[in-house]
Amino acid sequence: FFMLGPPNSGKTALAAHTALLSKFPYLKFCTAQTMLGFSELAKCQQLKKIFEDAHKSTLSCVVVDELETLLEYAPVGPRYSNNVLQTLKLLFKRPPPKGRKLFIIATTAYRDILDQLGLLASFSKVIHIANMSSGQHILHVLNEMDHCFNNDEMRYLEKKLHDKKVCIGIKALLDLIEVARQAEDKSRVGRFISQLEEVAGMI
Amino acid sequence: FFMLGPPNSGKTALAAHTALLSKFPYLKFCTAQTMLGFSELAKCQQLKKIFEDAHKSTLSCVVVDELETLLEYAPVGPRYSNNVLQTLKLLFKRPPPKGRKLFIIATTAYRDILDQLGLLASFSKVIHIANMSSGQHILHVLNEMDHCFNNDEMRYLEKKLHDKKVCIGIKALLDLIEVARQAEDKSRVGRFISQLEEVAGMI
Amino acid sequence: FFMLGPPNSGKTALAAHTALLSKFPYLKFCTAQTMLGFSELAKCQQLKKIFEDAHKSTLSCVVVDELETLLEYAPVGPRYSNNVLQTLKLLFKRPPPKGRKLFIIATTAYRDILDQLGLLASFSKVIHIANMSSGQHILHVLNEMDHCFNNDEMRYLEKKLHDKKVCIGIKALLDLIEVARQAEDKSRVGRFISQLEEVAGMI
Amino acid sequence: FFMLGPPNSGKTALAAHTALLSKFPYLKFCTAQTMLGFSELAKCQQLKKIFEDAHKSTLSCVVVDELETLLEYAPVGPRYSNNVLQTLKLLFKRPPPKGRKLFIIATTAYRDILDQLGLLASFSKVIHIANMSSGQHILHVLNEMDHCFNNDEMRYLEKKLHDKKVCIGIKALLDLIEVARQAEDKSRVGRFISQLEEVAGMI
Amino acid sequence: FFMLGPPNSGKTALAAHTALLSKFPYLKFCTAQTMLGFSELAKCQQLKKIFEDAHKSTLSCVVVDELETLLEYAPVGPRYSNNVLQTLKLLFKRPPPKGRKLFIIATTAYRDILDQLGLLASFSKVIHIANMSSGQHILHVLNEMDHCFNNDEMRYLEKKLHDKKVCIGIKALLDLIEVARQAEDKSRVGRFISQLEEVAGMI
Amino acid sequence: FFMLGPPNSGKTALAAHTALLSKFPYLKFCTAQTMLGFSELAKCQQLKKIFEDAHKSTLSCVVVDELETLLEYAPVGPRYSNNVLQTLKLLFKRPPPKGRKLFIIATTAYRDILDQLGLLASFSKVIHIANMSSGQHILHVLNEMDHCFNNDEMRYLEKKLHDKKVCIGIKALLDLIEVARQAEDKSRVGRFISQLEEVAGMI
Repeated sequence: FFMLGPPNSGKTALAAHTALLSKFPYLKFCTAQTMLGFSELAKCQQLKKIFEDAHKSTLSCVVVDELETLLEYAPVGPRYSNNVLQTLKLLFKRPPPKGRKLFIIATTAYRDILDQLGLLASFSKVIHIANMSSGQHILHVLNEMDHCFNNDEMRYLEKKLHDKKVCIGIKALLDLIEVARQAEDKSRVGRFISQLEEVAGMI
Repeated sequence: FFMLGPPNSGKTALAAHTALLSKFPYLKFCTAQTMLGFSELAKCQQLKKIFEDAHKSTLSCVVVDELETLLEYAPVGPRYSNNVLQTLKLLFKRPPPKGRKLFIIATTAYRDILDQLGLLASFSKVIHIANMSSGQHILHVLNEMDHCFNNDEMRYLEKKLHDKKVCIGIKALLDLIEVARQAEDKSRVGRFISQLEEVAGMI
Repeated sequence: FFMLGPPNSGKTALAAHTALLSKFPYLKFCTAQTMLGFSELAKCQQLKKIFEDAHKSTLSCVVVDELETLLEYAPVGPRYSNNVLQTLKLLFKRPPPKGRKLFIIATTAYRDILDQLGLLASFSKVIHIANMSSGQHILHVLNEMDHCFNNDEMRYLEKKLHDKKVCIGIKALLDLIEVARQAEDKSRVGRFISQLEEVAGMI
Repeated sequence: FFMLGPPNSGKTALAAHTALLSKFPYLKFCTAQTMLGFSELAKCQQLKKIFEDAHKSTLSCVVVDELETLLEYAPVGPRYSNNVLQTLKLLFKRPPPKGRKLFIIATTAYRDILDQLGLLASFSKVIHIANMSSGQHILHVLNEMDHCFNNDEMRYLEKKLHDKKVCIGIKALLDLIEVARQAEDKSRVGRFISQLEEVAGMI
Repeated sequence: FFMLGPPNSGKTALAAHTALLSKFPYLKFCTAQTMLGFSELAKCQQLKKIFEDAHKSTLSCVVVDELETLLEYAPVGPRYSNNVLQTLKLLFKRPPPKGRKLFIIATTAYRDILDQLGLLASFSKVIHIANMSSGQHILHVLNEMDHCFNNDEMRYLEKKLHDKKVCIGIKALLDLIEVARQAEDKSRVGRFISQLEEVAGMI
Repeated sequence: FFMLGPPNSGKTALAAHTALLSKFPYLKFCTAQTMLGFSELAKCQQLKKIFEDAHKSTLSCVVVDELETLLEYAPVGPRYSNNVLQTLKLLFKRPPPKGRKLFIIATTAYRDILDQLGLLASFSKVIHIANMSSGQHILHVLNEMDHCFNNDEMRYLEKKLHDKKVCIGIKALLDLIEVARQAEDKSRVGRFISQLEEVAGMI
């Protein structure tokens, strides 16, 4: 499985959620965050170990979060770690031992580059996670959440948002809602809307 | 011999099968998978050793699987290991000692690059392995396999597939069949067809 | 927060001032100046330590001054430290532990490059610090300062500057005022004006 | 002397033959094959030693086979060992001690590149070795060899080949003849011709 | 202060002279000549030490001669030491401790490159040192020097040079005068003029 | 002094001859030949030592032969040793101690590149050494040499060569004459002329 979407669109959360739901006995989350400061070689060895351990369990799930960060990809140059790339390619292709299954979920925001680098070819499914594109989407999220805006505020928001176009990831939206939830003054609805205009290009 | 074909078209399996059929006393399978984590130097030494051992036997066969992965080729840059390239070039050209024969089978999905790098020149035959291109090919594969679909399902599939165009490698097809074989519900034929439409671009 | 502005526009001072005003219990100022002579690795470790310490406090503020200098960015080539870049990206994205807040202020003069390198995406706000563009701005600064020019001089400056166009950063202006303050002769007003013409392109 | 020709055109054999015919007391054959696995530095030292030993003998001949492989030249990049290049340039130019003569024969398939790299300038003669271009050339080779085809077969081949155009190196032709010689069935002449059509583009 | 001018235009001498005139208690002259054979790291440490020592004195002057040579700048590639560049940038920007003053004079012949590299931004004044462009300039220099040409020769030179156009740096001119001064024969004036025509493009 | 000319035009011999004629007490010949196998660092140290020793003598002459080879210049890339370049630049510019003189002669075949690299700027004179361009030049050389061709042969050569155009360096010509001198048969004059046609493009 390959999850693809713009930054802050909730890829990582969805991948983690999917992995947890699977209730596989072996579940591992690989992210560059836990390998900060590792040398290229150390990263490769860590990745290799995670996959080798995964092959020991009958049912395993490995989430490889933000592939482009693991590859140390930087678009100016461009630069990336060919060592990590080759290691990931081999690990993604390596078939698990007979009778065992390995489920790999990878996330990224740079589809084109990973495709060019040949990393996508190993995945059977690519899932696109789009940003929300209409005010209706935002209202839907707000309705799902408790204790955020009161009824008056919700009516006001519905009037304002129902026919708008926006472009915002779920994670970025939740951040804005969180800020609004902590405020308690009257103008918080207005501020929430003006922030949507700024961050989500709402018109 | 040089086997050339798109990913999942069964090159590796065919190469391994050919090598086994040959029943040569020395038979070796070189793949980047077993050299994961090796340094460039270690890879070169391993390759050299395999070929030197091969020269000690009267009849030998060496399968070099996925040349582009052994070379650590990455198209962005592009980058590759010139050390491994030079080593392979020399080993491919090196004549076996008098009275001994060495049969080399190499597989790749990137013909153009290997040709540019001068690796193809050493091979006397290049075999193209095409993807299957018509529904008839798929029906042929299904008929060869036992215990997959029952007679009713087969009749339904024949009706649906006999005049379709597809593009799928044998390995990818076998994966789909395996998934269908494990399911036992009625809708598995429909799911199999919709997956063919998605993965193999069937129309 | 991301502060963006031309050299000598007072970004660093404003960032430091903002950080001090916040009165957060943990306050750290990262600048390439204190890491002069450090290897890439040592820089990365220092940055990692600063952020990890910040995460131990309930409310922290880290000022990352002149990102482009930390990255050792040089436009000819171009060259930069991918190690430092990857480390900063990860540290900027890393969420603080539950219940703790980390406020990051970064300054730079090269917006385009940092955007290309993907460093801007982690910041919720980008503040542009413009140079002063009219004589009125300069008069405003002079009025705010004590003991610089006497009343006669101020009247003369007002007449000369009130309808002029300039382009000067606050830091560069303060430098010129400091030079004028130390002089004590009559011609210092004239010299101050001629320097404005030269440095700030006043017309 | 500089021998230049397409792969499998017999350059190496001709160079070795010429060197042996010369009956010089010092005769050395440098090829990348014997330096497989050497570091750049070790290669340079080996080359230096060979030439220094050559200078100790009154009459010496050094064959430098496949210059492009010694240089580890790869056309993608392009990449090559500048150390080996500089060493060869100096060794080719270095005059032998007074009263001694050194005869250098080098072979390559890449004239343009070696010319660009400045390696050709040291050679007094460049010999082009062409592929054979007509069926008559092939018949001439067959007539020179004993015990290959019988008289009937030869008459048949003469009829088939005498007015054909081909493009094949002598080494590749000898390989085909060797295969035919080992077969003993009737169809071997037909197979020989169809292989000429495939490998040598015979029309 | 930043001194800018073509090679041999006397930048270094002028910088040294200015530094000496300042009679600052701490005076240091940094030039690549004294760091010949230093590693990049050693250069950076030496530069850092010079500036740190300068900060210990109330009034200091550091002359950084031929910035482009310190940076090991070579226009083919281009190549330069990013380590030295980053170190110089930081040292140039670092404010001296309160109450102390540091006066930095840097010289170069490549304005464009240093500007591109961002080194010019730290300097408050850029002084262009032009080559002399008329025969009058040369006569002026000759009149300032004692014991060079006798009165007859000077009259002859005045007649020849007063309406000519030249392009020569002061250092190159002094070299020519030195050569002429050591000669004692009659034709030295003619030779001096013909050399001016050659070196200074006098017409 | 800077000597510039095509390969085999006798630059090195002329430089060596000039140096010997000078009868300076310190005379050193730097060539890449004697530094074969040296590391970049070792080369730089050797060059530095030669120039430092030269500065100890009142009158010194250093011949730097084939600058482009010392720099390990290769046109594909292009590649060169920036370390050696920077060292040479500094050594060429470094003024000898008071009262001492250092005369530097450098030779190269690549004017453009050395000019681009900024190495030419340190030399006060550039001498172009052209190839010989007419048959008269060759006859002139032959007349200067004893015991080469007899009177009949010379008359024949004069008739053949006096109105021809050629392009040959003096060193290449001397090689041809040497070959002819060792032959003793009648046809040597004819062979000499046909070689001139081949090597020197004589028409």
